[in-house]
Amino acid sequence: MNLRKGNLMSVRDDVKVLDATIRDGGLCNNFEFSDEFVKELYKTNVKSGIDYMEFGYKASTSMFDENEFGKWKFCKEEDIRAIVGDNPSDMKIAVMADVGRCDYKTDFLPKSESVIDMVRVACYIHQIPAALDMIEHFHTLGYETTCNIMAVSQATTDQLSQALEMLKNSNVDVIYLVDSYGSLFPENACELTQFYLNAVEGSGKKVGFHAHNNQNLAFANTIETLSYGVSYLDATVEGMGRGAGNCSVELLLGFLKNPKYNLYPLLKFIEKYMKELKDKGVVWGYGLQYMFTGHFNRHPREAIDFTNNKREDFSEFYKSLLDNY
Amino acid sequence: MNLRKGNLMSVRDDVKVLDATIRDGGLCNNFEFSDEFVKELYKTNVKSGIDYMEFGYKASTSMFDENEFGKWKFCKEEDIRAIVGDNPSDMKIAVMADVGRCDYKTDFLPKSESVIDMVRVACYIHQIPAALDMIEHFHTLGYETTCNIMAVSQATTDQLSQALEMLKNSNVDVIYLVDSYGSLFPENACELTQFYLNAVEGSGKKVGFHAHNNQNLAFANTIETLSYGVSYLDATVEGMGRGAGNCSVELLLGFLKNPKYNLYPLLKFIEKYMKELKDKGVVWGYGLQYMFTGHFNRHPREAIDFTNNKREDFSEFYKSLLDNY
Repeated sequence: MNLRKGNLMSVRDDVKVLDATIRDGGLCNNFEFSDEFVKELYKTNVKSGIDYMEFGYKASTSMFDENEFGKWKFCKEEDIRAIVGDNPSDMKIAVMADVGRCDYKTDFLPKSESVIDMVRVACYIHQIPAALDMIEHFHTLGYETTCNIMAVSQATTDQLSQALEMLKNSNVDVIYLVDSYGSLFPENACELTQFYLNAVEGSGKKVGFHAHNNQNLAFANTIETLSYGVSYLDATVEGMGRGAGNCSVELLLGFLKNPKYNLYPLLKFIEKYMKELKDKGVVWGYGLQYMFTGHFNRHPREAIDFTNNKREDFSEFYKSLLDNY
Repeated sequence: MNLRKGNLMSVRDDVKVLDATIRDGGLCNNFEFSDEFVKELYKTNVKSGIDYMEFGYKASTSMFDENEFGKWKFCKEEDIRAIVGDNPSDMKIAVMADVGRCDYKTDFLPKSESVIDMVRVACYIHQIPAALDMIEHFHTLGYETTCNIMAVSQATTDQLSQALEMLKNSNVDVIYLVDSYGSLFPENACELTQFYLNAVEGSGKKVGFHAHNNQNLAFANTIETLSYGVSYLDATVEGMGRGAGNCSVELLLGFLKNPKYNLYPLLKFIEKYMKELKDKGVVWGYGLQYMFTGHFNRHPREAIDFTNNKREDFSEFYKSLLDNY
C-alpha cells in the first residue's frame, strides 16, 4: 500500500507554504532587519506565490526590553502595517506567540481590526493546556490558529497521543510537527506524520511541518512529510534560521509543482538582500557542530556557542557532548 | 505494507560504506592530493570502520597526459602500495574504470598480484555492453566488480530494464544507482531502488547508491534508498566531490547503527586535513547554481563554470538555463 498522497507530478491544493524568514531568521540577527529588507521580502513573497509570511514573534514587552531587540520580536500592528499597508495581496500574514512569553490577553486586536491573519502558538508538549487557552482566545478574536509542538523528538508517544486528542477537540486549524533539534530522519519524520494524521482524522484539521537543518535533512524531511500528507510547510530564504537553519524556500519552490509558485523573484531577492545580510556577518546553516546536537537530540545552544566563538575543534566539541549526554 | 528493510534501531550486515573522497573529490582538485593526505585518510578510514576506500580512476595514460593530473587519476599499483603497503587492514581497496577511458586489457594485474580488491566500472546506460566486457575481464582476473550506471535520471524504464537484465546474467557483484545530476528526490530514488532490487532478485547481487548534493538531498537519498534495500553506500569526507559534492561520510556514520563505525577519527582528520584543503581554495558543495542543474536534470558543468567564475547573478544564470532547456 502506498501511503503517499499525490505523486511527484501532481498538485495538491491543501499545500501551503509559509515563509518564516523574519521569525526564525530573526533569531540569527536579533530581529534587526532593515525596513527595506522586510518590505522587499514581502513583495517577493507575494510575487513568488507564498501563502503565508510570518513577521516575527508577538513577545511580551513586559518580559523583554524593546530596546534590546529588533521590532519583529514584538510585531506591533503599526509596524506590520508600515510594511504591508492593508495587505491587499492574497498572501496571509502570520505571527508567532510563545506560551509563557506573550501577553496574549492584551496584545492582540480583534481580527477585524488587524492585518494579521494567523497566530501560531508555539509550545512544548507539557504546555498544551496553556497553548489551548491561547488558541481558543485567538480563535474567538477571529484569527486562524496553529499549534506548533516544539521539540517533538523528545515527546513520548503517550504525551503526543494525549496532546493530539486535546487539539483535535479544540478550535485549532493546523497542528505542526516541529523538529526543533533537527534530529529526525525522513523515516521517523514520516512515521510521526502518519501518527499526527491518524490522530486528527475526521476533524478537518491540517498538519504542518517545521524543519531544522542540523543533519542536512530540512528540505528532505519537508518534502517527505509532505508526501505523507502534511499540508503546511515552513521554509525560510536560504534556510535562514536558528543554528543550522530551516528548509530553504528556494529548494521547496523548486520541488512544488503548483504553477502559482515562482522561483525567479526569490532569486533576485537573494542576490541583493541575502548577500548583504551575510556580508554583514549574520551566520546560520549546516555544520558538523549542528549535526552533533541533532544526532544527540538536544537543543543547539552549545553548537551556536561553538559557532559564535569561531571554534573549529570539532572532535573536542563532540567529546564534550558525549560527557554530558 | 512496509517495504523498508530493517529499521532505525537495527544493524544490517549487508551494508557497506565506500569512501570515494580521493576519486570524486579528486575531480575538484585535479587529483592533486598530497601523499600525507591520502595516507592519513587511509588510516582514518581503517579506524572509522569504512568498508571500501576508492583511490581514484584507472584512466588510460595514452588518452590522458600524466603530467596534467595528479597520480590518483591513474592509480598505479606502486602508487597505491606506497600508501597502503600490502593493506594489512580489513578495509578493501577500490578503483574506478570508466568505459571508453581505460586500457583495461593491459592496465590491470591479476588480483593475486594486486592490492586492489574491487574495480568499479562506470558507464552510461548505452554503454552497458562495453561495461559487461570490462566486468567479465575484471571478474576473470579475480576482482570484485560493480557496475555504476551513471545519470540514471536520464535513462528510460525500458533501457534500465534491459540493462539490469543483462547485468543480472553477468558476473558483476554490485549494481549502482548513480544520481550523477543530483536530480532525484527521495521518493523517486526509492522507487528506482525497488526497480533495481526487483530486477536482480534471486541473483544474489547487491545494489549500491551514489548521490550528488545538487538539491541538498545526497544524505537523505542515501539513507532513504538504504532503508529500501540498497547495501553499498558511497560517501566522501565533508561531501567532497564534483560540483555540489556527495553524501558526507560523517553524516552517514552518524546515522548507521553498526558499532564498527566510528565517527571520532574522521573528525580529527577533518579538523586538520579538510581545513587545509579548503584554505588552499578547493571548492565544492551545495549552492543555488547546482540546485538549478539538478532541478533541470542536466550535467552540472555550467554550474561548475558559474562557480569557478565566482558569479553571483543567480537569476541570470537561471534564465540562461531556461533558454537552452
